[in-house]
Amino acid sequence: MQRYFVDSTQISSPDRITVRGDDVHHIKNVMRMKAGDRLICCDNRGTDYLAELVSVSEGEARCRILETTASRGEPRIQVTIAASLTKGDKWEWMLQKGTELGAASFLPFTSARTVVKLDGKKAGKKRERWQRIAKEAAEQSHRGQIPHVEGVTDWRSLLERFSAFDRVLLASEKGGRPLREALQESAEEHLMVVVGPEGGFTETEEREAVAAGAVTVHLGPRILRAETAPLALLSCIHYSYGEMGGEPL
Amino acid sequence: MQRYFVDSTQISSPDRITVRGDDVHHIKNVMRMKAGDRLICCDNRGTDYLAELVSVSEGEARCRILETTASRGEPRIQVTIAASLTKGDKWEWMLQKGTELGAASFLPFTSARTVVKLDGKKAGKKRERWQRIAKEAAEQSHRGQIPHVEGVTDWRSLLERFSAFDRVLLASEKGGRPLREALQESAEEHLMVVVGPEGGFTETEEREAVAAGAVTVHLGPRILRAETAPLALLSCIHYSYGEMGGEPL
Repeated sequence: MQRYFVDSTQISSPDRITVRGDDVHHIKNVMRMKAGDRLICCDNRGTDYLAELVSVSEGEARCRILETTASRGEPRIQVTIAASLTKGDKWEWMLQKGTELGAASFLPFTSARTVVKLDGKKAGKKRERWQRIAKEAAEQSHRGQIPHVEGVTDWRSLLERFSAFDRVLLASEKGGRPLREALQESAEEHLMVVVGPEGGFTETEEREAVAAGAVTVHLGPRILRAETAPLALLSCIHYSYGEMGGEPL
Repeated sequence: MQRYFVDSTQISSPDRITVRGDDVHHIKNVMRMKAGDRLICCDNRGTDYLAELVSVSEGEARCRILETTASRGEPRIQVTIAASLTKGDKWEWMLQKGTELGAASFLPFTSARTVVKLDGKKAGKKRERWQRIAKEAAEQSHRGQIPHVEGVTDWRSLLERFSAFDRVLLASEKGGRPLREALQESAEEHLMVVVGPEGGFTETEEREAVAAGAVTVHLGPRILRAETAPLALLSCIHYSYGEMGGEPL
């Protein structure tokens, strides 16, 4: 069944939801839904509404709520993926799959070896595009929330963000602790994983990250690409906490 | 340091390795290596040779072995990824990342809802391309072996392959057991994971797979795309067995 994210202003008591924007086009022209057809609206705050389409016009799709349930798609552990910009469409791939795999938010950054540069105007447009990708992936994967995609930040500013997290794990090719060990001692709920660009981090950056509170971790002897590492880390972290197939559905 | 796979015929005692084929072009024209430069040759059987380039001509790069070590990149658990053909470049993307993540081999197949069709001649060319992708990804990720990529098989033939594995896990959107549970009882070393096309498996196919010995598993409440599921499964399986950051490097 199709899922659409709405915000609280679109939900009116006792049982009405009004879908607006691009999703109306999708409902009307892509899915060709008719009155009586069912869909799920999620309020991006953890509640799913099973709804029935009442009527569609150019700008609005009016729905009647049939059932209200808690969204089931959100993991308990909130993992933020801080990932350096990478070339081509790799960052967008990672964003899409990271959303499927349950990431809470994404923080693009540039470090010493980042190859991609984004000027101010381009960066703004990219961010809009990325937020759209996250929304579509969240809908398709049945998430209860759309991961937030932040603006591109620099290395210094990224370091300053570490203290807001219970644990920060920096993916290192040079060694560090096995991921399993780093997670065992952690019973916390807000994690950040930090993954560098194609060329990795400099030794100075690794030292600065550790000084700012990060733990360097590795995922075994194989080298993972910049766009693969966040997905592997996310999968293993959630699995470790029993989120990915750790409990019956 | 650059890594190249060689076969045993290219290694001659007491300490000579002769690289041939496309890799010679890479050594000579891409990396522009000179006599005295170092590289690693892997025999695709678990042994790495640290070598020094002696000379390069058009068709050969002659090297002298400095040191012999066991390849460290191979996981103990051998996981075969049986994945339906998917549209566009998604299968190749999955193949590349699956190789980075340590898959032992890949088995492309077609099932009821597979959208992509490959005729005989195209299938042959595709398989060559896929094997090349696996080789490059194995080199780049420091694998000790190139995963084998089989020819495309059909559903019936795939079912007949199950009995050769200690455990077969079929990714199911409909339910099944949590992955963690399915792995706990398994102390075996040869696993197969089976992932369907974009539209998933039919109920009949899931029944047939279970009858042939598969266990249906899920990775939590989020829906994963066809190209994402094998990577998540691979990451979690290896992590569970202590392979991905389970032990110090």
